[in-house]
Amino acid sequence: MISTRGQLMPPSPIRKLVPFAEAAKKKGIKVYHLNIGQPDIETPPAILDAVKKAVIPVLEYSHSAGNESYRRKLVDYYAKANILLSHEEIMITAGGSEAIQFGFFACLNPGDEVIVPEPFYANYNGFACAAGVKIVPITSTIENGFALPPIQSFEKVLTPRSKAILICNPNNPTGYLYSSQEMEALGELCKKYDLYLFSDEAYREFCYAGAALSALSLKGLDDQVVVMDTISKRYSACGARIGAFITRNKELYGAAMKFAQARLSPPGLAQILGEAAVDLPADFFNAAKAEYQARRDILVKRLNQMPGVFCPNPGGAFYAIARLPIDDSDRFCQWLLASFSHNGQTLMLAPATGFYGTEGLGKQEVRLAYVLNSDSISAAMDCLAYALQQYPGRVH
Amino acid sequence: MISTRGQLMPPSPIRKLVPFAEAAKKKGIKVYHLNIGQPDIETPPAILDAVKKAVIPVLEYSHSAGNESYRRKLVDYYAKANILLSHEEIMITAGGSEAIQFGFFACLNPGDEVIVPEPFYANYNGFACAAGVKIVPITSTIENGFALPPIQSFEKVLTPRSKAILICNPNNPTGYLYSSQEMEALGELCKKYDLYLFSDEAYREFCYAGAALSALSLKGLDDQVVVMDTISKRYSACGARIGAFITRNKELYGAAMKFAQARLSPPGLAQILGEAAVDLPADFFNAAKAEYQARRDILVKRLNQMPGVFCPNPGGAFYAIARLPIDDSDRFCQWLLASFSHNGQTLMLAPATGFYGTEGLGKQEVRLAYVLNSDSISAAMDCLAYALQQYPGRVH
Repeated sequence: MISTRGQLMPPSPIRKLVPFAEAAKKKGIKVYHLNIGQPDIETPPAILDAVKKAVIPVLEYSHSAGNESYRRKLVDYYAKANILLSHEEIMITAGGSEAIQFGFFACLNPGDEVIVPEPFYANYNGFACAAGVKIVPITSTIENGFALPPIQSFEKVLTPRSKAILICNPNNPTGYLYSSQEMEALGELCKKYDLYLFSDEAYREFCYAGAALSALSLKGLDDQVVVMDTISKRYSACGARIGAFITRNKELYGAAMKFAQARLSPPGLAQILGEAAVDLPADFFNAAKAEYQARRDILVKRLNQMPGVFCPNPGGAFYAIARLPIDDSDRFCQWLLASFSHNGQTLMLAPATGFYGTEGLGKQEVRLAYVLNSDSISAAMDCLAYALQQYPGRVH
Repeated sequence: MISTRGQLMPPSPIRKLVPFAEAAKKKGIKVYHLNIGQPDIETPPAILDAVKKAVIPVLEYSHSAGNESYRRKLVDYYAKANILLSHEEIMITAGGSEAIQFGFFACLNPGDEVIVPEPFYANYNGFACAAGVKIVPITSTIENGFALPPIQSFEKVLTPRSKAILICNPNNPTGYLYSSQEMEALGELCKKYDLYLFSDEAYREFCYAGAALSALSLKGLDDQVVVMDTISKRYSACGARIGAFITRNKELYGAAMKFAQARLSPPGLAQILGEAAVDLPADFFNAAKAEYQARRDILVKRLNQMPGVFCPNPGGAFYAIARLPIDDSDRFCQWLLASFSHNGQTLMLAPATGFYGTEGLGKQEVRLAYVLNSDSISAAMDCLAYALQQYPGRVH
C-alpha cells in the first residue's frame, strides 16, 4: 500500500509531456525545449576546474551545514548584494529544493497553511505534500504582468493555521520582479500577522530592470525571514545540487540543523564548485544577463506580434508566461508534440495550469523558458506562430 | 515559532560531544575518533579521476532517478551479488539518507509504525520524526551478539498501524550480520502480516563471516522489499552523497519517483564517481575488507582483555558495541574528553544510549567504529584500558 501522501503527491506537471516529446523525436522532428529551466549557458570552466584540481585523499562527510570555508565565502557573496550575514546563518543544502524542505519541516506543522501568489513553481506542491502543509494560492494576473496581488487579498485568506508566505523573486514561472514597495508591503504583512516570509531567490542575479530586493534586506524581520537559495541557475550548475537555507533566526537555524544532521552532509564535490563560483570575476553575471535579456526581448516581441497572443515583459529570471488564443493549454502543448510540426520542427512548452493552485486557471496560458539561444528561440517562435494558425482548438 | 516536529526532531546524539572533543584538542590532547563511521580508507583515485576527466559543458539536471547509464551499471553491480534488477527498479538518491526518506514518505502515513531492532542507526529517529512515523524498537542484546530478536517479540508489538520492519544488515551500530535463516524468518513475518521490509544494506561489502543475504533475494516479497543503499562506506566516499532506493514494486517506485521529481535530481558530479566505482577491479573490496577485519580483530581482542569489558565479535560493517564497567556511557564518553588523558591522548566513543529507542538502555555500552588504522586502534585501546581504571563512575 502506498501511503496517502505518496498517492496525493503530485507528479511533475511538465514531465507528463515527456513521452510525447520523445515520440516526436523518434519521428525525426526537432523539438525546441522551452519547457524547463535548464539553461544552455556553459557552466564556467573555472568552477569545474576547481573540482578537478582538488586534492581529495578521502571524500569525507562535510559539516552538516556545509564546509565552513564555503559558508564564509558566501558571506562575501551576499555582502556584495548588501546582505550582511554570518556564516552561521547560512546552511548549505542539496539544491534550493532541500532548503525549501528544511523551511517547511522546521517552521510548519501538518495542517498549517502557507500563502503563495499563483502561478507558482509547481514543486512547491510536492514539498507541501511531503510536509503535510496546505498551500493557499493568491491569484496574480497576466493583465498587470503578475504583480503582487493586493495585500488585502492575502489578509482575506488568513486563518489561525496561516504560518507563512512563500514568494519567488524574481519569479518562476512569471518572470515578475517584485518592487521594493511590494517587498516592503509583504514584510509589513508578515510583521502584522507574525508570519514567516519564505523567499526563494534562485534567480536573484537575473534582473533586467533594477535589482531584486532580498527579503533579508527587510528591516525588523530577522526572526521571520528564510531565504531559499541555489547556485543552479546562477552559474548554470543545476546538476550540482547546491543551495542554501538562510535565516538570522538562531532558534530556527538550530531546528533546521537537526534535519541537516539527520542527512549528514550536503554534496561534497559540488561544494568545491560552489565555493569557487564566489571567486568568479565581478562582471561574470553581466554576460549571462545580457544574453538572457536579448533572448527575452526577441521572445516577448515575437509573442506579442502573434494575433491574439499577449505576453507581459518579465523583469527577471528567464521565464515568461504568455496568454494564447487556445481552448486548453495542456491539450495544446500535447498537440504541439503529438500532431504538429513545421518544417520538421516543433516546440515544447509548459502548460500554465500546472503552476496554478486554483483549479481551472492557466488554461489559456503557457510558460516559456528562454534557455535556448536567440536563433533557436526565433525558430521556435516561427513554429508557434504557425501552430496557432493550425491548432483546431483555437479560440478568439 | 518552530514547528512541533522541528522541536521534537532529535539532535545527533554523537554531535553533542563534539564541543568537548574540540576543547580537548585545544588543550593539545590527541583524540582518537572511534565515534563516527567516517573511514580513513583512501577514496579510490580512479573514481575521483572519472570526475576529473569528465567533459561537462553544462552541468545539467540528471534524470530524477539518476543517470540511466549509472543505473544500468548498478544492474551489473547487483548482478554480481546475485541480485537481479532492472535499471527501472533503481533510483539514485542523495546518500542512503534520501533513500530512507523516500521509503518512509511513500510507504508510511503519519502515525504509522515501523518496527526496528534496537540498538539502531540513530538517524532513523530523525527521518521518522520528519515523516511523522513512530519507531517501535525490539531489543536485541549484547549477550548473543545482537542477533535478531525472536520473531514472537515482533509479533507481540504488532498493531493495526504497523506497516514496516526496518533492518540494517550488516548492522550499524552492532556489526551483527543477520544469518540467512534470520532474513528468511523476517521475510515470512512480513509476508504473514503484509509489512514492508526496509533493508539498509550500506555495509553489504564488509562481511567477515560469509556474505549478507540481501532482502532483495527473499522469494515472494518483491512488492514488499525496499533496499536503501549507499556508496558512502563501500568506496570510502561518504561526502559524495550518492545512494539508491531499490524496489521491484512498480507502484511504489512510481510513488517514490514523485518525491524524486520534486527535488529534481540527485548530485550530478558524484553520479560520475559512483558510476566509475562499479568498474573498480573485482578484488577491490578484498583489501578494504582485510584491513577492516584486522582492525576488528585487534579491537575486539583488546576490549575483551580488559577486566569487566565484553565485546561480541561483529560479523560485518565496521562497528562494535562493547559493554563497559561504567555507570553511564554518556557521562563516561564526556569524561574521556573533558577530564581524562593518557600520555596526552584520549579517545572519542559513541554512547550506545543514542542507538536505543527504549529509554534507559545502553547505559553500559558504547559503540566503537574501527575506522582508524591498527596502530591508532591499539593506542586508543591503551587509553581506554587506563581510563576504565581511572573513571570515578566505574562499577563492578
